[in-house]
Amino acid sequence: MTSAFETRLKDNAARTEALLTDLLSDAPRDAEIVRPAGLLSAMRHGVLNGGKRLRPFLVIESAALLGGDAEAALRVAAALECVHCYSLVHDDLPAMDDDDLRRGQPTVHKAFDEATAILAGDSLLTYAFDIIAAPATGLGPEAKLELVLALSRAAGVGGMAGGQALDLAAEIASPDEAGIVTLQAMKTGALIRFACEAGAIIARASVEDRKRLSAYGETIGLAFQLADDLLDLTADAQTMGKATGKDAARGKGTLVALNGQAWAERRLEQLVGQAEALLAPFGDKAAILIETARFVADRKS
Amino acid sequence: MTSAFETRLKDNAARTEALLTDLLSDAPRDAEIVRPAGLLSAMRHGVLNGGKRLRPFLVIESAALLGGDAEAALRVAAALECVHCYSLVHDDLPAMDDDDLRRGQPTVHKAFDEATAILAGDSLLTYAFDIIAAPATGLGPEAKLELVLALSRAAGVGGMAGGQALDLAAEIASPDEAGIVTLQAMKTGALIRFACEAGAIIARASVEDRKRLSAYGETIGLAFQLADDLLDLTADAQTMGKATGKDAARGKGTLVALNGQAWAERRLEQLVGQAEALLAPFGDKAAILIETARFVADRKS
Repeated sequence: MTSAFETRLKDNAARTEALLTDLLSDAPRDAEIVRPAGLLSAMRHGVLNGGKRLRPFLVIESAALLGGDAEAALRVAAALECVHCYSLVHDDLPAMDDDDLRRGQPTVHKAFDEATAILAGDSLLTYAFDIIAAPATGLGPEAKLELVLALSRAAGVGGMAGGQALDLAAEIASPDEAGIVTLQAMKTGALIRFACEAGAIIARASVEDRKRLSAYGETIGLAFQLADDLLDLTADAQTMGKATGKDAARGKGTLVALNGQAWAERRLEQLVGQAEALLAPFGDKAAILIETARFVADRKS
Repeated sequence: MTSAFETRLKDNAARTEALLTDLLSDAPRDAEIVRPAGLLSAMRHGVLNGGKRLRPFLVIESAALLGGDAEAALRVAAALECVHCYSLVHDDLPAMDDDDLRRGQPTVHKAFDEATAILAGDSLLTYAFDIIAAPATGLGPEAKLELVLALSRAAGVGGMAGGQALDLAAEIASPDEAGIVTLQAMKTGALIRFACEAGAIIARASVEDRKRLSAYGETIGLAFQLADDLLDLTADAQTMGKATGKDAARGKGTLVALNGQAWAERRLEQLVGQAEALLAPFGDKAAILIETARFVADRKS
């Protein structure tokens, strides 16, 4: 049985993939010269791989909650997914996590080669800003510019990329609990938080609502990471479509390793409660985002 | 003896480096969490390396020609240099050109490690959009957004990154003359063209002037690449601060290899003449950009 939530998740994912397929088509856009076929294939391989599209879902549903334009939200969702997928493509490289599989498929550097994977990641990151800035209805220049700024900060040296650098350093010198929290807030938290804040920017929401959505995003980012750490410990590679148990094998500190599984499960409940409390002022309209918090905390793959 | 032109080039380079030094300081900006010290060092290593800063110079002088705000131009110049330097950091990686030296210094993956070089490149690219979009005087949201769009198209799959992919493919199957022209227009041309067009965007110039600056940028981009190919053939590694003769060793097709040195020298003269003709409507004000075309064509390192 598929729940209404799962149907909505799949429906949003399908719409996001349809837009990404169009955006990654062969025809060069205005001011582009040629789109080299091999590089474009590698970009598609890195993006059109049947992901859950959680971040796009958060953009779309956060914008919907606050009355933002749906088409604009879809574009921003696609841009954000390009950034997320670029980070996976680079993260999988031999010099980084050295992963051969992702969602049961060969990673980009395996299906193509390392150089192409580096350039495909670079191109996806670059394209995200193109997608946001390109002429399109539903968003004014101020909103687009706020999105560019918030996305670049969430993805850059003080956000996701910085978190990946801290993650590499953590394999050499184990961080303490505070260090792990910072690392995770940057590596996975920043982009999830951006997804929710983006909805508020698209809707030109009040400062208060923007802060609220941002805090909600931070909360489910924490839940996402905790669930991920639990899964790395308990799931098998087949369920995940990628190697598991790698954190433990590397002696990499996670909050689950530090505080135990029972603690993590209690903490996940707390976080879902926090998300619910944050969204309470929106009443029933926020039901879907509250279900999302539950989904993120309970996910099994 | 240092010419007035060289003094101006050095002065602009110093101003660009001062801003880049400030932008790459330890303190996180608003919405950034932490700037990891190692990653930031690698970014600085990739950027603050005594380059000529030709692209920043073109932004600054193109904007000045058309009456654009000087501070805004300097910021865009710094952003563009981040994109240029990111491309060098990634291009030097073992999976790409595998270069150990750049400007006589160890490349980023040599001075740090491969993973850090990948992330430093990623972070520099991301930061460029932050620098353009960040609140600052002298530029309105429309102009900033046009810059984001033009930069992402110049740098992405249909521009610089696409050109690098074509360049990798060219090592396997040699392109014909038209293929080489396309490759070079993307790999080095797109960013140089953007530099000049950016000046027009900053100055909110007419469509005609924007096209004129863009065509000027295209022309000196061609001259830049031709001079580069000539240098690769004739200069030694010490003058260049990096390995030379690599194109020939790889059997990589260049227009110089196809058409000969004498042809290339005549073609460079033609291109300088074209640049001059394009800027003729601006009269004496354009003297500095005409000198730049000459400088680019004549450069010996």
